[in-house]
Formats: sequence, structure tokens, C-alpha cells
Amino acid sequence: MSSFKQSAHKLLLIPGPVECHDDVLLANAHPSMSHVSPAFAPSFAYCIKALRKVLYAPTAQPFIIAGSGTLGWDLVAANLIEAGQNALVLNSGYFGDSFADCLETYGAKVTQVKAPVGGRPSLEDVEAALKKDKYALMTFTHVRSTKAASEVDTSTGVLSDAKALGELVKRVSPETLVILDGVCAVASEEIHQDDWNIDVVVGASQKGLSTPPGVSITTVSTKALKVLENRKTPVASYFANYKRWLPIMQSYENLTPAYFATPPVNLIYALEASLKQITEGSPSLEERFQIHREASKKFKKAAEELGFKQVATEPETAANGMTAVYVPEGIAPPALVGALGSRGIVIAGGLHKDIKTKYVRFGHMGVSVHPSRNDVDVMIKGLQDAVAEVKQQSA
Amino acid sequence: MSSFKQSAHKLLLIPGPVECHDDVLLANAHPSMSHVSPAFAPSFAYCIKALRKVLYAPTAQPFIIAGSGTLGWDLVAANLIEAGQNALVLNSGYFGDSFADCLETYGAKVTQVKAPVGGRPSLEDVEAALKKDKYALMTFTHVRSTKAASEVDTSTGVLSDAKALGELVKRVSPETLVILDGVCAVASEEIHQDDWNIDVVVGASQKGLSTPPGVSITTVSTKALKVLENRKTPVASYFANYKRWLPIMQSYENLTPAYFATPPVNLIYALEASLKQITEGSPSLEERFQIHREASKKFKKAAEELGFKQVATEPETAANGMTAVYVPEGIAPPALVGALGSRGIVIAGGLHKDIKTKYVRFGHMGVSVHPSRNDVDVMIKGLQDAVAEVKQQSA
Repeated sequence: MSSFKQSAHKLLLIPGPVECHDDVLLANAHPSMSHVSPAFAPSFAYCIKALRKVLYAPTAQPFIIAGSGTLGWDLVAANLIEAGQNALVLNSGYFGDSFADCLETYGAKVTQVKAPVGGRPSLEDVEAALKKDKYALMTFTHVRSTKAASEVDTSTGVLSDAKALGELVKRVSPETLVILDGVCAVASEEIHQDDWNIDVVVGASQKGLSTPPGVSITTVSTKALKVLENRKTPVASYFANYKRWLPIMQSYENLTPAYFATPPVNLIYALEASLKQITEGSPSLEERFQIHREASKKFKKAAEELGFKQVATEPETAANGMTAVYVPEGIAPPALVGALGSRGIVIAGGLHKDIKTKYVRFGHMGVSVHPSRNDVDVMIKGLQDAVAEVKQQSA
Repeated sequence: MSSFKQSAHKLLLIPGPVECHDDVLLANAHPSMSHVSPAFAPSFAYCIKALRKVLYAPTAQPFIIAGSGTLGWDLVAANLIEAGQNALVLNSGYFGDSFADCLETYGAKVTQVKAPVGGRPSLEDVEAALKKDKYALMTFTHVRSTKAASEVDTSTGVLSDAKALGELVKRVSPETLVILDGVCAVASEEIHQDDWNIDVVVGASQKGLSTPPGVSITTVSTKALKVLENRKTPVASYFANYKRWLPIMQSYENLTPAYFATPPVNLIYALEASLKQITEGSPSLEERFQIHREASKKFKKAAEELGFKQVATEPETAANGMTAVYVPEGIAPPALVGALGSRGIVIAGGLHKDIKTKYVRFGHMGVSVHPSRNDVDVMIKGLQDAVAEVKQQSA
């Protein structure tokens, strides 16, 4: 009855899913356990507590639910805003469009502040928008498929527009909830949820958390939970209802598991294994973010030397967990993806509708940037060889 | 960095999650793969096709989505009925209550036909209800937490109230969609979706399909897809929107993966491994259902000999994948669960609110009833010993 086949594994270097450590994969193969077993509860509780560490959010309530990152948008839209209320969406591409769609599905009135391709909305534009109307919440994508994060690493430390946006809202519209779509940022970009006045971070397992896909992760501030509690209308979803999940999360954290819907038990073991490495392993959490920054710089420099141009218009705003670059003149993205594939490296094509056929995306996050591995060097070498091959073919 | 610990595994014999074959667990530990990789697409396509076989539903459209079984209720409620329309819920316990809640969340007007504990609504009552009003859909739970399935194995073959209910609706209210909540029935109970006029089977990975939890599985008839297409109001969910998922499922089946939300890649490899065993392995699919029936009879007989009494009031309506039984006089369920636990066997307590403290639940489905294993014998022996121990303590 044995039918499991294992073919040679290609190195997965896309902006998620990403490579997982063997410990994480083994944990995902854990023998079946009851979702309400006292032996399983500590793993669930561990994940809840560790996520607070990863996001520097000691006061936030993590929700770990079977689903995709996308489910996080429904959680926000169904729970933290009511039909007819206003939402402000800072739109920098594909994921901004989709979050706006999701909010409108639940009856929110969406105003968008759009950024040019590769850019980000200016703080002035956002401030003007916030002063014009009253918004129940404001959303922004922390790492964009086209460009990426928002961190500015100055000599004075870390400054990010996530921080600036959180502070801006606190100053000019303190009742507005701040929602950070961090699906492609959690655990690869430094996010100080509590200090930065971020009410919800929307995440998923398969990006910086280096766990297989299938888990929606959201961390919610006490302020947002109060908004939930004081809703005038019922939550417009059954499965994506924080009111149903809140007692479940609290029960697991107290090691007295309760039931609403069966959690993805094996994926939670896998997430636990990865979070152990992230929050207790060496390098430390702080070092880990630094390693992401260094790996990103190294790869971006190598790509630029080969003629690739970052989609991000301001290089200092580029993400640290991924790189989106226009391919050099004379190279077709599919040919490049193919040439890398034949070298055992998987990268991703474009997603932003305006420039889809002109750029490619690389992932360098999670376990792939761990000092024990050399994935980034392999990727640089592979890219150099692939470019040479593709250029030769088209010459 | 290696921190994976494996403690002695207790045999998991609850009504889900259930034991998984090692091939399935290994597939769940598959190295990371892109969700849109041409190497992954055939596994997704395989699952779609195999689910049609398991449910005898060559014309149905399976949807495989990251989530829990519960998400299937949202899929039905958000897509196949509109706010203000009527739903008829045949309620036989905990899961009937919840499905009704879910439908009301999306604005449906719910009428319930309630069954007494351990019983099921009579066909006459259902017919009377169907004739009284016009219903967009009718739901029923195929295997109930208290009693269980609805199959009557007569000498003339398989007859089930699922079949009778499907035929009844076709006769008296042909426009009403028939929704079978089969979370605890898919792959352990014979369901002929197409022939029985069932429009949606709601399932999950962690029951008869013997795969870890984290996958919502629903199979939808062409009639139901037409209802979806002809909706007058938009689908009231973003993540649980069949219109967004339909092209994705079709793309994967055509081996040209498309993106809406990241699928649970590893769990789909695991599901594929299990579906291979179920649909291609030995025993055959038909034999597999027969083995479930035999295992069920054997276990129920042994339990009755020990003084347990089935919650199902008509024994011929009992499920084949699980057994719910009142504990004998003088035995406390927690003591029994504990005594079995110390023998390495995990069973479940009660769920139905009226009798929660009086009964226990056993699972005997999926790989646990495979002829290569002896889980049912181990469970019987364990139960005999545990009963003797608990009786002695209270004597």
C-alpha cells in the first residue's frame, strides 16, 4: 500500500509558500491527535504566546484558524466594521484591490488612496484622507507583491511607514482601527504591533513563519476587540466570526481546549516547531530580522548587477523578505523562470495587473535566510547562470 | 536546532480526527512546493476527480478549500440561498442547531423539523413541512454526533434516509436544493450523491477520508451551481464565495493552476495519498464501505454485551463510522475515558446538550478499519478491561 514518491526537490524561492525546516515538516507528519486532547493543547497555547513575541504585541489576541491568508480579510471585514461604515484602503496593488473587494462584500463603504506602481501613498495624502471623513478602519499592505515592505533602516534604528501610519492615525483619527495586511511580512519584517498602534496584523503560515500553508493568523488589539464587543449589528459570517473563536483561543491558551470548528492540528504542530526556532533558537528574533535585511541587500545588489531593476521606486522602501524586479531588456520572464527551474530553483512571475509580464518575484525569507543554509547564494549563482543562458539563446 | 519530539502515540478512536496511514502523514511532510507549480497541480486535480468517485457524483463539482468542515456551512449559506429565503433544517442534534445558526447568519429564514434525542425526523413530517412552504434548500446531518448515520442495510442492498430524503424532495419540492452534512460520513458511509438527488455534500478531511484536519470539502451539483449563477444578490462572503473558487477548481483540474487564495498544499498531498488508497487500493471502494459496516456491527455488539446502550433509538439507523452509547449504570464517562486513555486509546465524550454527561463516542472509520490493522479489536479489548477496572473502583 506504500505509494509515497519523493522526487528531487527544487528550492522554493518565491514570496510564499517558502522552504520549511525538516523539524517543521516532521511535525506536520505528527500522528493523528484529538483536537481537544490535553496533550495537544500546550502546542496550541505555545503558538498563541509565541505569535505575541514575533509581533511585539504582548496585549494582542492571536487567532489561529484553518484557512488562507485571505480569510484574514474576511475576519477584519465581517467583525471590525459594520455595513454602511467607511473604510480607508491604502492601495498599492493587487492585494489592496482585493482587500477593498472583501470590505465591500460585507457592506463597507471603501475610499481608496492609490499609489503609483512601485510607490506608496504619501503620508500627506493619507492624512488628508483621514481628515476628510470618519473611518471605522484603515488598511494597508505591508509587503506588496510588486514592491514590498515599508521599512526604512536608518542609522537611528528601524523606521517604517507602518509605524508612521499607526502614529498618524493615532494623532488625527484615534478611533480608526489600523489594519496591517502582513501576510508577506510577519516574521520576516520587524513589526511592533503594540508600540506602532496597529490594531490587527493579518498573516498566514506559509511566508516568514516558514510553515506549510493552511493557517490564517491574525493578531487583534484589545481596542479592536472592544469594537467587536460593541457592534450594533451581528457579525456577518459564521465561520469567520471572532466572537465564536475568542473563547476557543482563550480556552486553548488556558490548556482547557474547547470546540467550535476543528483546528488544523498537524499544521499547528508544524507552526509550533517553526515558532520555537524563531523565538527561542539561534539567531534570536532581533538577529533574524537583521539577517533578513542583510540577505535582501545582498540579493538585490546581485540582481541589479545583472541588469534587473527593482519595481520599488524608492529602494529604501523595498521589502526584506522578497524582491520584485523588472527583467533586463531582451529577457522574457517565462524563459528566465524556466532557466532557473532547470537549475532546481523555483521563482515566481508577476501579479500586478499593469506590469504582470515585465517582472519576476523572488522570495528570501524564513528558514531560507538562516545562517545554516546557503539558499541566497544558490539563488544568486542560479540567476547569474540563467541570465547568461537566456541571453545566449536570444542573441 | 532539531527539537522534534515523538512521544508514544495513543490510538485515536474518536469520530474525527481519525488515524492516518503513514503514507498520508509522510505526504503531509512533503517539502515546500509552490501552489501554482505544474508539479503540484496533478495532485490537486487527482483529489478533485477522486472525490467524485468516493461520492458517486460524476457530475458534481468538488471544492477543496483550506478550512474546517464548519466552513462548508458558510459555503452553503452564503452561496446557495439568499437573504429572506426559506431553509428547512432537519435537526437531530448539535450539528443541526449549528447549521441553522449559520444559515440565519446569512439572512435565511429557518424552519426546523426536530427529532427526539437519538431519533430522526420522520419522512412524513418532512413531507408535510416541504408542502407547507417553499424552501430554497433543505439540510440534514447524515451522521449525527448523538446517534449517527441513516443507513438501513437491507437484504435488497443499501437504503438510506439520505436516499429517501433526496427522492422525497425531488417528488414534492423539486426546486429545493438538498444539502447533506456529511462531515462525519464522507468515505465511511456509502453516499450516491448523483443518484440520490443530493445537491451538496459537506465534508472535511479528518473523518472517513483519514487525512489530517484543515481541509473543507464540498461537492456541488450542476443544479446548485445554476442557482449560484442566477442569484439576484451578491454572495455574502469573500473567502467563502464559490464564484471565486469555481474557476480555480476548474483550472487545477485542467492542470493550469490559478490563484485566489493559497491552497493548503501539504494537506492536499496528504489527501491525495489517502484518496489513492480509498479509490485505487485494495479493498475496493465498495468493499471499504462493507468493511465499515462489519466493523461497526462487531464493535456495537461488543459494547452492548458490556452493558452500553446505543443512543440511536432504532439500531438499524446507526452510523457505520462511529458509535455513540450511554454508559452502563455506575460508570462515569470521565472515568471510562481515563481508563481507556491509560491503555493508550483515545475516545470522545458527549456533545449533545441534553445528554452530554451520560454518553461517550467511539470512532471506527477510515484507515482504522482497514484489514491490515486491528484497531477495532484493540478498542474492544481496551473497553472490556477499562470497564472492569472502573467497575472495580466504584464497587
